[in-house]
Amino acid sequence: MEYRKLKDQDKDGASAPEDVESLRGKPISAVGPVERTKWKRKSIVTLALTFLTSSQAILIVWSKRAGKYEYSVTTANFSVEALKCALSLAALARIWSNEGVTEDNRLSTTLDEVGVYPIPALLYLVKNLLQYYIFAYVDAPGYQILKNLNIISTGVLYRIILKRKLSEIQWAAFIILCAGCTTAQLNPKSDSVLQTPFQGWVMAIVMALLSGFAGVYTEAIIKKRPSRNINVQNFWLYVFGMAFNAVAIVVQDFDAVMNKGFFHGYSFITVLMILNHALSGIAVSMVMKYADNIVKVRHGITALILVYSTSVAMLLTAVVSVFLFGFHLSLAFFLGSTVVSVAVYLHSIGKVQR
Amino acid sequence: MEYRKLKDQDKDGASAPEDVESLRGKPISAVGPVERTKWKRKSIVTLALTFLTSSQAILIVWSKRAGKYEYSVTTANFSVEALKCALSLAALARIWSNEGVTEDNRLSTTLDEVGVYPIPALLYLVKNLLQYYIFAYVDAPGYQILKNLNIISTGVLYRIILKRKLSEIQWAAFIILCAGCTTAQLNPKSDSVLQTPFQGWVMAIVMALLSGFAGVYTEAIIKKRPSRNINVQNFWLYVFGMAFNAVAIVVQDFDAVMNKGFFHGYSFITVLMILNHALSGIAVSMVMKYADNIVKVRHGITALILVYSTSVAMLLTAVVSVFLFGFHLSLAFFLGSTVVSVAVYLHSIGKVQR
Repeated sequence: MEYRKLKDQDKDGASAPEDVESLRGKPISAVGPVERTKWKRKSIVTLALTFLTSSQAILIVWSKRAGKYEYSVTTANFSVEALKCALSLAALARIWSNEGVTEDNRLSTTLDEVGVYPIPALLYLVKNLLQYYIFAYVDAPGYQILKNLNIISTGVLYRIILKRKLSEIQWAAFIILCAGCTTAQLNPKSDSVLQTPFQGWVMAIVMALLSGFAGVYTEAIIKKRPSRNINVQNFWLYVFGMAFNAVAIVVQDFDAVMNKGFFHGYSFITVLMILNHALSGIAVSMVMKYADNIVKVRHGITALILVYSTSVAMLLTAVVSVFLFGFHLSLAFFLGSTVVSVAVYLHSIGKVQR
Repeated sequence: MEYRKLKDQDKDGASAPEDVESLRGKPISAVGPVERTKWKRKSIVTLALTFLTSSQAILIVWSKRAGKYEYSVTTANFSVEALKCALSLAALARIWSNEGVTEDNRLSTTLDEVGVYPIPALLYLVKNLLQYYIFAYVDAPGYQILKNLNIISTGVLYRIILKRKLSEIQWAAFIILCAGCTTAQLNPKSDSVLQTPFQGWVMAIVMALLSGFAGVYTEAIIKKRPSRNINVQNFWLYVFGMAFNAVAIVVQDFDAVMNKGFFHGYSFITVLMILNHALSGIAVSMVMKYADNIVKVRHGITALILVYSTSVAMLLTAVVSVFLFGFHLSLAFFLGSTVVSVAVYLHSIGKVQR
C-alpha cells in the first residue's frame, strides 16, 4: 500500500487515474535530495519484496511434513490464483461503487487487449510440465542448482524484451549473483549436476528462459496500458492462471484429487501459505505497475528487483531455518552469501555510475 | 626481461640508470592510444607472473610423492634464496665489468639502507613458525581455506602502507576474489573451518597480515631508492632470506638434515622447482621495481597484481592438474573460477573509472 503513496508524489511519471481505492493515501514529504529519496523508495520496495519472498519460502518449508508435501502442489497453486482473482474482483467492486464504471476500470475487454494475458500462464504451465521430464536427466539436488540459470535468463530477457541496457558492472553483478546463489546452495550431492547430459542442460535452459520470459512478459503486459486499472489487468492474468493450473491438476494430480479430494492434506500452515502467496502475488503486480514511477525510471525494473530480492530471500530463509528448523549453515553458504551481497552492492553502484 | 624494454619507453617515470645488463633491450613502438598500450603492458606483466606462479604450483604438486614431501621444505627454501643470491651476484659482476662500480651498483651499503632488508625475511620466518602452532586449532584443509585471508590482508596493507586508495569497485572485487578462491578450493572437509576456535582465527589473521606485510614491505623497500641497482637490493634481501631460512632449518628440520643430509630426498623435479622459484622470485622483484613505470602509475601495484595472478594461477594449476595428475574439478571449482574471473574483470574496470 506504500506504492501509491509514493506514486502520488511522482510528477514526472505517466499520469495514472486515481482508480485503486486501496492504494490511495497521503503523499509522504520528500526529505533530502532527490537521489537520496529515490534510493530510499527503491530500498523500501526491495525490502518489502524480500520480506514477502522470504516468508513465502519459509511457509513452503514449514508446509512440508518430513520433507514431503502432504497436499497437491497443483491444487495449492490453483487456490492461490483463485484467491487472487477473488481479491481483484472485490477491489474492483468497491471501485465501481465509489467511482462508477469507466473505460479504464471496466472488466470487459477487447480481443486485442486480452489476447496477451494467457501467455505468462501458458509459459508457466509448459515450464511446470517440463519439470517432470527433466528429472529423467537430473536429480533433485542438481535441479535446485540448475534453477539458478533463471537469474541469467532474466537478465538476458530484460535486455531483449524490455530493451533496457545493463551496465558492464550490472552484468558482472548478475553473473556473480548466479554463482553466489548456487554456491550458497552447494551440498555434497551438488556435484552430480556436472554429470548432467546435454539434453538436461537444454531443458534446464529452456525452463529458465520460460520462467524468465513469463516474469518479464507479465511486467510488459501490465505496463503496456498505464491508465488501465491494475485490478482488471490482474483479474485477466489470474483467470488464465486458474485455467492453466486446472490443466496442471488434471495432468499431474488427477488421481490424488479424485481419490482424496481437492483439499486433501491441507493444514493451517498450508492455508497461511496460500494466503501469503496470493497477497505477495498482488503486491508484485502493484510493484510492476508502479515501481518504475517510484524510482523515476521509465521502463521495467521490477523483473530485476525481483531476481535480487528472491536471491536475498533465499539466504534469509536459510538463516531463519537455522532457528526454526535447526538447519546447519555450511562454509559454502557463507561464501555464497558474501558474493550475493557484493552482487547487490555492485548492481546499485553500477546504476549510479551509468 | 620484457620489463625493461617497456620501461625504456616510459617518459613520465622516475629515471632509472641503465644498470641492469640483462634487462636492456629495444623499446617497443607504441601502437594505438596510450590507454590501450598501458593495458597491453599490464596484461603482459600479469600474464607472465601468472605463468610463473602456475608453473611453481604445478612443480610443487609434482615434487610431492604420494601427497608428501620427501625432501625438507626448509632446505629447499634455503636453496632458492642461495640461488637467487648467486644469480644477483653474477648479474652484478657483469655490470661491474661493463660499467664499472658506481654509487648505485656498489654492494657496500649504509646501516640506514640495509636496516630494513631483514624485515621481510623475518616476517616470513615468524609466519612459517606460526604455521606449526596453528595446526593445534585448524586441520590442513581448514588451513588451506584460511590462507585466503591473505587476499584481504594484502588489500588492507596496500591501503595502509602504500597509502593507495582502492575504488569501491576494487574493494568489491577484492572481497569476491577472496570468496571465489575459497569457493574453488571447497571440498567436503572444508566445513571443518567453521569449527575453528577463536585462537585459530586470530593466528590465521596474524599470519595473513605477516605475509601480506612482507610482500607489500618488500615492494616499498625496492621502490624507496629508484636509482639503486635492483641486483644490489635483491642481494641484500636474499642474504637475509638465507639467514632466516637457516634458522628455520635448525628449528624445524635439524634432525632430518643431520641424519639424512641437506639434500636428502631431492629429485630432478625438486631441482627444477628450486630453479623455477628462484627465477620467478627475481622476476617478481623486477616487476616490483619497474611495473609501476610500465603501467605509468607512480606507486606500488605489484602486490595487488601478485594477488590476482596468484589467484588465477591457483585455478590454472587445478585445470592443468586434471590432465597431469587426473584430478577432478568440482562444481564449487567452476563457481569459484567464475567469481574470480569477474573479480579480475571488475578490478580492471574499477581502475579505468577512477
